[in-house]
Amino acid sequence: MLNDILENRFIENLASTFARSPLQENGLQESDAELIRLTGSDIMLAIKVDSIVEEIEMGLYRDPYLIGWMTVTAPASDLAAVGAKPLGILIAETLAEDSERHFISELQRGIKEAGEAYGIHVLGGDTNFSGSMQMTGCALGIITDSKPMMRRGCKPGDHIYSSERLGLGSAYALSAYSEMGNDKPLDYRPLARLKEGELLRRFASACMDTSDGLLATLDQLMRLNGTGFDVSTPLDQILHKAALDLACSSGIPPWLTLCGPHGEFELVFTIPPQRVDEFLQAARNIDWAPIYLGRVTETCNIMLNTGGGAKRVPTGAIRDLFSKVSGDLKRYISALLETDAAGR
Amino acid sequence: MLNDILENRFIENLASTFARSPLQENGLQESDAELIRLTGSDIMLAIKVDSIVEEIEMGLYRDPYLIGWMTVTAPASDLAAVGAKPLGILIAETLAEDSERHFISELQRGIKEAGEAYGIHVLGGDTNFSGSMQMTGCALGIITDSKPMMRRGCKPGDHIYSSERLGLGSAYALSAYSEMGNDKPLDYRPLARLKEGELLRRFASACMDTSDGLLATLDQLMRLNGTGFDVSTPLDQILHKAALDLACSSGIPPWLTLCGPHGEFELVFTIPPQRVDEFLQAARNIDWAPIYLGRVTETCNIMLNTGGGAKRVPTGAIRDLFSKVSGDLKRYISALLETDAAGR
Repeated sequence: MLNDILENRFIENLASTFARSPLQENGLQESDAELIRLTGSDIMLAIKVDSIVEEIEMGLYRDPYLIGWMTVTAPASDLAAVGAKPLGILIAETLAEDSERHFISELQRGIKEAGEAYGIHVLGGDTNFSGSMQMTGCALGIITDSKPMMRRGCKPGDHIYSSERLGLGSAYALSAYSEMGNDKPLDYRPLARLKEGELLRRFASACMDTSDGLLATLDQLMRLNGTGFDVSTPLDQILHKAALDLACSSGIPPWLTLCGPHGEFELVFTIPPQRVDEFLQAARNIDWAPIYLGRVTETCNIMLNTGGGAKRVPTGAIRDLFSKVSGDLKRYISALLETDAAGR
Repeated sequence: MLNDILENRFIENLASTFARSPLQENGLQESDAELIRLTGSDIMLAIKVDSIVEEIEMGLYRDPYLIGWMTVTAPASDLAAVGAKPLGILIAETLAEDSERHFISELQRGIKEAGEAYGIHVLGGDTNFSGSMQMTGCALGIITDSKPMMRRGCKPGDHIYSSERLGLGSAYALSAYSEMGNDKPLDYRPLARLKEGELLRRFASACMDTSDGLLATLDQLMRLNGTGFDVSTPLDQILHKAALDLACSSGIPPWLTLCGPHGEFELVFTIPPQRVDEFLQAARNIDWAPIYLGRVTETCNIMLNTGGGAKRVPTGAIRDLFSKVSGDLKRYISALLETDAAGR
């Protein structure tokens, strides 16, 4: 079922070449970060590598500060989704040969300020020069006192939450790429939810970040857990204000801001019903108000409350759509609009 | 003194933006891999990220198997140089959009076979698509039973060795780029010296790999230690057969195969005189015959025995040369030949 999705199939193909380490706790796709036991100690390492390539090449990230910020935030968010305490990050920078001094200093400032926000030190790196820029972050964390969070583990009846309102990632991409936005792109600076992830590890039955948007996250969790997700909370209580505003001003259906492959790096997680009260109290203690989305269901469907009641969303087809239109954004948006019209 | 070198100055500039982690054992440039203490355990992590960018873009690595092999070998060699036991590697692949299936399978085969050669499992990764290909490996190892090896620590009188004969990296680059080589490029498939590195950790006062060639390695060790290196062994006993053959057939002075910034990933290390016998016995026990190069000296010079006796080599100028000719290979080689002529 995982391999019904093009991206999963490609990753499975690449990974099938390699034998799995006997020290690795997670199976392929089972967690946001790789989990490695250290023989002779109680420590489990969490480690994740993430490159920022397409976002730069397609012009989605132009501001060097944002590129630096995201180089840290993307892999740090994966540490958050397994509940690890961050140790540090290594950064491989491939800079364009004609990079200006100001561009490089803004890039470094973005890395520095994201690291400070998360308490993640830059431990080292590698620098290269090329015709085209790309950035890779490899974040390292530890888990000492209990089991890590994984993507697998939720059960029907579990409550679904997100760490914050959703849809900013796709709204940002839509505003940057199309004529839907204002002259000025939306303010986009996601936060890796490390503090929340460390707390969640005590309560959540499954967790994954929305680096690829909510629908891709729920679809992947559905395929891994063999469960469905009924997102019953009305969209206006789930969506980020910027996503609601963009939908309103451009006339696109609001739920489309949950579809795109560019996400906002919030955590989506499930809590068993008997732990909900205790979890919500612990969240209040750190001044955090998670967003209730709905319930885990037995039937393998993703349901959204788009205003006219519960609606089944073809998340598999939506995830493959960007590849199927070969990354053509106009075709992508019009295909999403067709999906919406067909669902009415 | 480190910052007399262009590359060191650039790295120092980038790194000076960031605060150093209190858990980090090594200072900037002090070791081939980053060394991180794990609080509450005796374990020290060794971690290193390396990207293969210029080698692909400039056409030095065309064979996908070699690209895969080097993606593992380059950071694994840095683990070897600190004496770490490998835990695994994460690989970020940026593939060209038009990559053929055979190219990708050969790339994966190179990664797999290097991993098997070193006992390094692929733990995870990230895959992206772009106009231009690049590969990043982030290798992870541990040190449990004693102190790591660093680049700093050698003293005048220490013996200098390399793990094998040298010069293959530059000979390969010369043969690939110029008309000096045969039709067929040299056979180039370096080995990360992990087994040797683990043994060396008990004996060596300093260690560094020759990823940038011998002269850059000795120059960096000189600047870090405030010592010099007198390489008194005649070149024909130090140079790799392919380097000697290339020098002979093309007429270039053999020592130039130690100059180039593309190395062969051997270990260069120093052993205090009172430990030499014990070290050589331990090496014999693992069927390893290190190459004796010479002695550490008080004066900060690099001396080579080029046939006509000891000759001081301007390693600082040679290291900066590639940047100064803006990567122009013809100018680079002719400038090296001028350096040779001036030294006679």
